[in-house]
Amino acid sequence: MPTLVLLRHGQSVWNRDNLFTGWTDVDLTEQGTAEARQAGERLAAAGFGFDACFTSVLKRAIKTLDLVLDAMDLLWLPVDKSWRLNERHYGALQGLDKAETARHYGDAQVFAWRRSWEVRPPPLDVGDTRYPIGDRRYSQVPPALLPRCESLKDTVVRVLPYWEGTIAPALRRNQRVLVTAHGNSLRGLVKVLTGMSAQEICAFEMPTGAPLVCALDSALRLIDRRFLAP
Amino acid sequence: MPTLVLLRHGQSVWNRDNLFTGWTDVDLTEQGTAEARQAGERLAAAGFGFDACFTSVLKRAIKTLDLVLDAMDLLWLPVDKSWRLNERHYGALQGLDKAETARHYGDAQVFAWRRSWEVRPPPLDVGDTRYPIGDRRYSQVPPALLPRCESLKDTVVRVLPYWEGTIAPALRRNQRVLVTAHGNSLRGLVKVLTGMSAQEICAFEMPTGAPLVCALDSALRLIDRRFLAP
Repeated sequence: MPTLVLLRHGQSVWNRDNLFTGWTDVDLTEQGTAEARQAGERLAAAGFGFDACFTSVLKRAIKTLDLVLDAMDLLWLPVDKSWRLNERHYGALQGLDKAETARHYGDAQVFAWRRSWEVRPPPLDVGDTRYPIGDRRYSQVPPALLPRCESLKDTVVRVLPYWEGTIAPALRRNQRVLVTAHGNSLRGLVKVLTGMSAQEICAFEMPTGAPLVCALDSALRLIDRRFLAP
Repeated sequence: MPTLVLLRHGQSVWNRDNLFTGWTDVDLTEQGTAEARQAGERLAAAGFGFDACFTSVLKRAIKTLDLVLDAMDLLWLPVDKSWRLNERHYGALQGLDKAETARHYGDAQVFAWRRSWEVRPPPLDVGDTRYPIGDRRYSQVPPALLPRCESLKDTVVRVLPYWEGTIAPALRRNQRVLVTAHGNSLRGLVKVLTGMSAQEICAFEMPTGAPLVCALDSALRLIDRRFLAP
């Protein structure tokens, strides 16, 4: 039976500082590093093994994966890194303080940006230094696909081709798969797997550093999901 | 012009303890971790950038690469891990103390094992727990190719297909390449690039954590090589 484990990165510096992060490439905090290591230890203690790993091109997810693999003595596994697993792009909100933004725009607006399905945050200007066009890690991405901001729906639409083209084929080859990524890109995978409604997926929470174990049948339909308890 | 940088892993636990290591998957020491990070900082300060990275399936080389990439803010780069870049397989010597082995077998014999071109160390029994056949990381390697011991020549012969099939094509696509690996697998690459004689390559030393910068022409002939000074 195919095994799929989804893991959100450990606490990042901007999680801690309560800033909108999105595609900003911030590091893990000490706590985040410890969360990642503990996730690996828990997976090892529960007898999990993996054959293939997938992550984003953002260091908080990559380092989380490396810490997990080190704790499991599996650093030798192949790892594929894709921008399609990046966090939702938060547009012009990236770098802003969440509480301050709520004071400025009102709680209802910020709630809509954070927990709705189709509402987009304000877009970045293409000349903004936060716009990813000049970043070498995205040089292979067609410029038309590089977002200036994303709704959760946009994020799911962008994750989907990577699920269909890369992760699902690995599972069909009977590989045990670990994905370390971000709250919203993982929501995308959970929505695909569970068939949750837009409303349900907006309310679904992925805690940092908690492995979500997905049992699938041979057609990759979800049979069971549970967070691996500490 | 294609850029190629070769880097031996930082000091490992068994480097420090003066044991024959080979394919044993030992970790970096604190000093080795610092050496790797410094190598990354030096490469960044000297203005180096990379497009593709290659390493072995042994954690001392993988962690060295991760530390270098983190110091250069390049963790998002693709990394390919191959058993063909592993250290020379030291057969039944793996795990033995080098000084003790010299007392037992004599300095001349140990020198021949360590610094000759074709002399093989004593082979492992296939039933030995140190024989890699049961190790999942080698499950895709044809069993006939899994060594019970290797001479330096055997190691070079085993590295060569990876150079020709994977690293050289990346350089021909004009990618800037970083290889983090081991003293003897890197000797293999140096021999290929320089055309050194068997005698010369046996005497060639790769210090831990010192980047060897190779300038190549478009036919991948070596124009210049130098260790990046601290």
